[in-house]
Amino acid sequence: MAHSHPHDETHLSSSAVLQDIVIGLADGLTVPFALAAGLSGAVASSGLIITAGLAEIVAGSIAMGLGGYLAGRTEVEHYDAELKREYEEVANVPDVERAEVDELLAEIGLSASTRALAVRELTADPDQWVRFMMKYELGLEKPDPRQAPKSAFTIAGAYVVGGLIPLSAYFFTATPTAGLVWSALITLVCLLVFGYFRSRLTGQPPLWGALKMAGVGSLAAGAAYLVAKSIAGWDFLGL
Amino acid sequence: MAHSHPHDETHLSSSAVLQDIVIGLADGLTVPFALAAGLSGAVASSGLIITAGLAEIVAGSIAMGLGGYLAGRTEVEHYDAELKREYEEVANVPDVERAEVDELLAEIGLSASTRALAVRELTADPDQWVRFMMKYELGLEKPDPRQAPKSAFTIAGAYVVGGLIPLSAYFFTATPTAGLVWSALITLVCLLVFGYFRSRLTGQPPLWGALKMAGVGSLAAGAAYLVAKSIAGWDFLGL
Repeated sequence: MAHSHPHDETHLSSSAVLQDIVIGLADGLTVPFALAAGLSGAVASSGLIITAGLAEIVAGSIAMGLGGYLAGRTEVEHYDAELKREYEEVANVPDVERAEVDELLAEIGLSASTRALAVRELTADPDQWVRFMMKYELGLEKPDPRQAPKSAFTIAGAYVVGGLIPLSAYFFTATPTAGLVWSALITLVCLLVFGYFRSRLTGQPPLWGALKMAGVGSLAAGAAYLVAKSIAGWDFLGL
Repeated sequence: MAHSHPHDETHLSSSAVLQDIVIGLADGLTVPFALAAGLSGAVASSGLIITAGLAEIVAGSIAMGLGGYLAGRTEVEHYDAELKREYEEVANVPDVERAEVDELLAEIGLSASTRALAVRELTADPDQWVRFMMKYELGLEKPDPRQAPKSAFTIAGAYVVGGLIPLSAYFFTATPTAGLVWSALITLVCLLVFGYFRSRLTGQPPLWGALKMAGVGSLAAGAAYLVAKSIAGWDFLGL
């Protein structure tokens, strides 16, 4: 059926890119923002906040992007290994596999006589049989091997873009406190807009999505601020 | 069928916890480690590295945990909305839905006459019919509503534990450079062990998994170090 729906496939692959952008932006907008906000309560130099912020953006984007790449590769390897195993089982223990097909068809409510017909037809062609087992027994869809590197770059890029937004405020202000005020304003607006459109994409209530996203960012930043401020009071660290 | 396999369900739920621990640990071990390593090349005080590291752990664990919680809630809401829609469609446009069932059965290779029997049996009970559409048309499994808050705490907790390991080295050493050496040693060992067991859990080659995990951490830390060190040379930041 996939061949007759080229339009659907385009839709799917563009939504995979959008999903990766959403994943990268969601973390990029919150974690570097919260780290910079936290340090604003603890250190006197904007330069330190920018250094820590950029180091975090580099570390986070590599961890997320490379992590996403390796997870994608693992998914492809896992699929291929299961596919090979299903072909072997269909060839070596066809009766066991036929009983599994029968069990799946019983679950969806078919009678014994209809199942007997269906099992015979479905298992007539090994390719079709294995495709059925992969999708309906194991719940696995064939992953696109080109997806993993694409995802890695998209997620990492979105994380960098998301992280530079809150950090930019510290470039153009004189003190960490002024930087924090502008950073919080800019980032909250971005989180609201981002949360709004993300929820529209997935068909969720968009205003609620905007508030949720802003809430996560505020909570992370507020907690980081409190922790960093109280650590700054620990004399033995000599800040 | 689910009722007759209580053991399988236990297995699934314990592996969901393990999966959450793996997600939290993978990021917790790499990002705070890389941030601390990066700052070691740029600042003279271990206190600053500890402050930034703890702020990052707080920010990252809240962003990941709360993000995971909200994603889980969205999944539950999405499932419930689709379930409601399928019940309405089965009641209001049964012929359209019956044609969709027929199409799905044609894809798995059933003949027209077997399909006619199967469609009649399968659509005899609305609950069974909707269950079939949810699983086989939409590929959706019923999510556990209690999973979201559990996941949030597990991921956040694992992130905190993972992040404190590399940071602990800076507590017990006098200079950022000494801290970095110990932090890198401890964290690389942890990444190797973690990568080894993570790959064993998912049935991948464990030694390759160990090297991959250590590679991600090293690359993130090395890049963060280079970036922070070169920023420290920017005179206008006044570090």
